Amino acid sequence: MAKYKDFYFSLYNSDKIKKDGACRWKTLYKKHEIIFMKKYQDILKKALTIVRPTPSQQKKLHSLSKKTLSLVKKEVKKVGGKAILAGSIVKDVWLPSKMEFDIFILFPPTFTEKKLENLGLKIGKKVITKLKGSFKIEYAEHPYVCGNIDGVDVDIVPCYEVKSTEELKSAVDRTPFHVKYIEKKLPLKLSNDVRLLKQFLNANEMYGADAKTQGFSGYACELLIIRYKSFINVLKAAVKWQPGEIIDIEKYYEKENYQRLRSIFKNQTLILIDPTDRKRNTTAALSAQNFFKFKKCAKEFLERPSIDFFLPKKWKPMTEEELIRKLIERKTELILITFSPPAVISDILWPQLRRFADRIQNILEETKYEFKVLRKDVYSNEKDLAVVLLEMEISRLPVIQKRIGPIVFDLDDSERFIKKYKDMAILGPYIENNYWVVEIKRHFLTAQEKLLDTLSKPLDILLAKGIPNYIAQELAKGFQIISETSKIADLIKKDEGFGIFLRKYFEEKNLA
Amino acid sequence: MAKYKDFYFSLYNSDKIKKDGACRWKTLYKKHEIIFMKKYQDILKKALTIVRPTPSQQKKLHSLSKKTLSLVKKEVKKVGGKAILAGSIVKDVWLPSKMEFDIFILFPPTFTEKKLENLGLKIGKKVITKLKGSFKIEYAEHPYVCGNIDGVDVDIVPCYEVKSTEELKSAVDRTPFHVKYIEKKLPLKLSNDVRLLKQFLNANEMYGADAKTQGFSGYACELLIIRYKSFINVLKAAVKWQPGEIIDIEKYYEKENYQRLRSIFKNQTLILIDPTDRKRNTTAALSAQNFFKFKKCAKEFLERPSIDFFLPKKWKPMTEEELIRKLIERKTELILITFSPPAVISDILWPQLRRFADRIQNILEETKYEFKVLRKDVYSNEKDLAVVLLEMEISRLPVIQKRIGPIVFDLDDSERFIKKYKDMAILGPYIENNYWVVEIKRHFLTAQEKLLDTLSKPLDILLAKGIPNYIAQELAKGFQIISETSKIADLIKKDEGFGIFLRKYFEEKNLA
Repeated sequence: MAKYKDFYFSLYNSDKIKKDGACRWKTLYKKHEIIFMKKYQDILKKALTIVRPTPSQQKKLHSLSKKTLSLVKKEVKKVGGKAILAGSIVKDVWLPSKMEFDIFILFPPTFTEKKLENLGLKIGKKVITKLKGSFKIEYAEHPYVCGNIDGVDVDIVPCYEVKSTEELKSAVDRTPFHVKYIEKKLPLKLSNDVRLLKQFLNANEMYGADAKTQGFSGYACELLIIRYKSFINVLKAAVKWQPGEIIDIEKYYEKENYQRLRSIFKNQTLILIDPTDRKRNTTAALSAQNFFKFKKCAKEFLERPSIDFFLPKKWKPMTEEELIRKLIERKTELILITFSPPAVISDILWPQLRRFADRIQNILEETKYEFKVLRKDVYSNEKDLAVVLLEMEISRLPVIQKRIGPIVFDLDDSERFIKKYKDMAILGPYIENNYWVVEIKRHFLTAQEKLLDTLSKPLDILLAKGIPNYIAQELAKGFQIISETSKIADLIKKDEGFGIFLRKYFEEKNLA
Repeated sequence: MAKYKDFYFSLYNSDKIKKDGACRWKTLYKKHEIIFMKKYQDILKKALTIVRPTPSQQKKLHSLSKKTLSLVKKEVKKVGGKAILAGSIVKDVWLPSKMEFDIFILFPPTFTEKKLENLGLKIGKKVITKLKGSFKIEYAEHPYVCGNIDGVDVDIVPCYEVKSTEELKSAVDRTPFHVKYIEKKLPLKLSNDVRLLKQFLNANEMYGADAKTQGFSGYACELLIIRYKSFINVLKAAVKWQPGEIIDIEKYYEKENYQRLRSIFKNQTLILIDPTDRKRNTTAALSAQNFFKFKKCAKEFLERPSIDFFLPKKWKPMTEEELIRKLIERKTELILITFSPPAVISDILWPQLRRFADRIQNILEETKYEFKVLRKDVYSNEKDLAVVLLEMEISRLPVIQKRIGPIVFDLDDSERFIKKYKDMAILGPYIENNYWVVEIKRHFLTAQEKLLDTLSKPLDILLAKGIPNYIAQELAKGFQIISETSKIADLIKKDEGFGIFLRKYFEEKNLA
């Protein structure tokens, strides 16, 4: 809205307006603010039709959750536990696109882990089966039952009922504390504001604290609404956030200690203190990119409100022609390493992909090779394709490679250096600035050759080179190195998501 | 000779020889050593015909020097000074290719500098004129008269007669001390050994302590013969020299202090203590390259004695075809900066050329540009051509250039960075590892463009960029940047010396 203020202010400063005086400007500005508030209201009203479930959806989810909870409670009673509803169904903040609820089974901390897992799975399976649902077993910190009943996702998760967050046995034990806090602190009338925030984040690919998204969790959305009281207020606040921003709803910390707090939560752009555990940053998974992206989206929405911010952006895959144009424009070389993604959960896959890309960059840029990566990114459809994209600044090097050895006064090292390179040298050993130098033939003239050599190795060597284990296993089975635009275009034809990823790689990169 | 020893030793170890016993091997080895000594004698005899002046040359130089000295002495007497012969004529160590002698006029230290210079020049001019020679005034630390009489170079140099080297007023005052020392310590019978050493160094381009050659002075040659007693012994010793070698003829230092001495004469490969001044290294100008080159030549001569070591090597200029082959082999790019050498003495020209080349490398390799020089060298015919040769490892870069900014937590710097690059950015600002990054269009895509821009500037800017003053003055008048092999070939046609320099650049580079 600042720009409108500027606009009116410039009017105010013009001679014409000056005659009318300050009053006139203030009235104009106020009038405009009212117009704007009206515009927000219109847009949010429209957005609510997207984010608010229909009465029938409401009815379906609530009756199913009630029924499921009572069945679980019945079973749990026999073995001495409790059961609670968890997830977005609590306080009614779920999105119609995500019909789901969780049931947490709380066992006494005296149970062994084995007993907790066995009982949890047994009860989960029994209840889902009784409700004619299908299920599979998933693994977080404990195994749990991941069911689907009549199109609704139902997770039944066992955990320990501990007295406080100080006594957590695993991260899942934390959820009941979150449920309790939200139940107590989030007024029902703010449910739709949470929904708006979630949908706003969702449409802009920042919803989810998982390793792929690196965005905001549902719990973080609820806390932000509790703190700022409305969706619009969250956006207004976000515009002013600075990296290292601290949001401490329960005021656990004095302002004097904020600097210390920042050094504890080092390199975290947003520090949203968990009201149920003062030592935890609820938004620890948020990437710096998404922190600034959220600030930018918030600013843009406040300046030019539009329903588009709540609708997932429709990306078109990049075409071969566009790609060729980009590469001519940038005069860089694209190299893709493609392989099958390992069959591991998303939260393991993405960190491994990113670590793999880092490792590859290091290998290419080792002094011995001296190639240079301009930028890189990773993609996977999580089914049959994983890609490391390397955009090369320097991908070709001369045949001649210079090796600088020890200073001539270091006799032992000099002897070793000369002995090692004497026969290999194309020129030298000679001396430059008192250091021994040889010129030898470079082994790998292109980054592609070096990559092919590095990755065409048995599993144990790949692991020794520091390639993450699951990725190394896949590479040992096979991979491809692609650079020609026609082959990249073929890949886009096979996998549209990759084409979209390519477009985002070249286009979606302005956070200021 | 070691290799012959090895050869006989291997024979000795063979079964056949073992029967004959150790005695037989020793006899063989001794016999061989005798054969070898005979071979040295033959070669050195031949070499002496090159290095020893003919009787008529001897007569001419000695009579002229006597006559000149007596004339100078007569003039000097009137004003209260002395005169001595200096240079290679003392102790008869001059080469027939260099018919020359120096006369030093020694004035009392009470004379003002002005008076010394005026009297020195006046006497010099008068004497040379009387002998029907031509002369010009040259400038070392004082101006002096540089004459030529009947084809003989005669320098008449004024200096102060000080009591000891502790009281030197300038470097020329040192010469009388050197003359006295050599007169006293070099036996006449070793004159020809000095000549052999000088010619050996001369033929291999290591004779002269000037800034271009960076080799051994005549005085250093005389000292080496005094120390090792013969030419062959100097070579045998040199083979064993190690960087930081200390030769202390007058035993001024205890061996315990050698390490400290090396740290005083830091980065000097050969420390030949001046017997007339214990604080001075006579071979301070010797480059590390020439130190190792001398060791290598010595080793090769001892292993395979040949008259060739005393004959200047005949280099052929590189041909265009050879150059093309080299560049295809190496896959590098040659860039030449050519310009007129400034009209300054050689000892100023060469250090400035080398500093200029260093500066150019730094400018090309600044982070902003990121070109990379593999190797470089400088050439001048000291008349109308000076060249900086740059062999590029990376001479072309993509259009896209990445600028990495501050960490996002550094708010002020981040603001400045974003403000600076926001409009310039082709992509970004975005974030990588918590640092702001932008991609901008690179200004100079090739090293040639960058060079052209850097050097096409007025004199004051060139000087501000750290380009040595005399070179900067020439560049401001004009220069060329050449890269195409056909144009390099044209340059070779115009200047054969440059063609030879090019061949040496690619070929003469093995010091081990």
